[in-house]
Amino acid sequence: MAKSDVKLLGAWTSPFVMRARIALNIKSVDYEYQEENWLVSKSELLLKSNPIHKKVPVLIHADNPICESLIIVQYIDEVWSSGPSILPSDPYDRATSRFWSAYIDDKWFPPMIAFLFAQEEDAKKAAIAQMEESLVPLEEAFGKCSKGKAFFGGDRIGFLDIAFGCFLGWLRVIEKVGGIELLNETKTPSLLKWAERFSSDTAVKELIPDTDKLAEFGKALPEFGKALQAKMRANN
Amino acid sequence: MAKSDVKLLGAWTSPFVMRARIALNIKSVDYEYQEENWLVSKSELLLKSNPIHKKVPVLIHADNPICESLIIVQYIDEVWSSGPSILPSDPYDRATSRFWSAYIDDKWFPPMIAFLFAQEEDAKKAAIAQMEESLVPLEEAFGKCSKGKAFFGGDRIGFLDIAFGCFLGWLRVIEKVGGIELLNETKTPSLLKWAERFSSDTAVKELIPDTDKLAEFGKALPEFGKALQAKMRANN
Repeated sequence: MAKSDVKLLGAWTSPFVMRARIALNIKSVDYEYQEENWLVSKSELLLKSNPIHKKVPVLIHADNPICESLIIVQYIDEVWSSGPSILPSDPYDRATSRFWSAYIDDKWFPPMIAFLFAQEEDAKKAAIAQMEESLVPLEEAFGKCSKGKAFFGGDRIGFLDIAFGCFLGWLRVIEKVGGIELLNETKTPSLLKWAERFSSDTAVKELIPDTDKLAEFGKALPEFGKALQAKMRANN
Repeated sequence: MAKSDVKLLGAWTSPFVMRARIALNIKSVDYEYQEENWLVSKSELLLKSNPIHKKVPVLIHADNPICESLIIVQYIDEVWSSGPSILPSDPYDRATSRFWSAYIDDKWFPPMIAFLFAQEEDAKKAAIAQMEESLVPLEEAFGKCSKGKAFFGGDRIGFLDIAFGCFLGWLRVIEKVGGIELLNETKTPSLLKWAERFSSDTAVKELIPDTDKLAEFGKALPEFGKALQAKMRANN
């Protein structure tokens, strides 16, 4: 397949973009990558390709735009079916992977983003408590899904590994700036070891941003959030 | 397969439960149905089967609980693969079906539920405006997905038909109590005709609740919401 047949619109800071990139790496798909600077403006191609949400990632394959990170990962799994499978083959295992992936977007991501945009210490503390709480069932899920193997997906990285693992860059930033250990030996020993294995996987390691660089970017988010709120108020 | 191998925990008022039931009908799966009265209390089986969200629907198949309506529909499609397909076979069409199904849960459902729980006229008006707005892209999507055929899924009801069609019962209640036409000849002519076809399909028609009965149930929701808010405040 010609490289130009596959294009990904992304942003280096986005965990959701990382999901698509890990999936493309697993399947050894050669693709063109276009970086979007969403804090400043959005490209014409992004606005045209994802007119509903206007968000990255967008995978453009044979001129067809595919949006929403977990949908993109499933699409990649279905199209490049000769590569290693990303979703498990058993329907119940597939349903379980989908369930916990939705759980992550529903219970982990909102407090994570709340922490990063928080302007007050109290809001940060509340977000940390919610993040910690969301990790407890996930630690338990690891035992059930991995069945004693290295990853949620078994011997290799799978759908749920990608769904949660994409957040490890930001998780480390939060641990660093918050002076906390979200993943630790006491409450999440399996996830702690899993995170090490995940981060050193060949399909992943080049994609996890440097913690200091990401933390530097993160510093701008509370101010950006404030400006966005002001803009929304002005438009109302 | 013995009937007792498949059990569905549901509630007759829930659009999400209807998704699972339509999928089971399409695949001609015989199943045991257990009605949950979630306004009053939740059964032990529900709490045990869906400890994370404690919500219906839960499909229990060979003692395995499967939660979250769209995940259940995909599970049914994958397990009973000899019946008519629910998701399209083409990966891009599958991605498109998943995208619009997520859109419905994201953009249509929140204002719908806001309307039903609203205590003030202003909140109802705002919710109606949001519901109307959410239908415009969906009308356009119908043209692209159906490719001139009767349903989003083509000649038969598919994933996206189920994802949106399950809301038609409540949509009619809102039209009736609000004195409005959410689906109409002017803005959503294709969806208007599609809704008629969907509601009279053999896999669906027995499942759409009677509008007056549903409206009667709906009357209790604002008070229920108020009581719930008071309870949450008391617990904080």
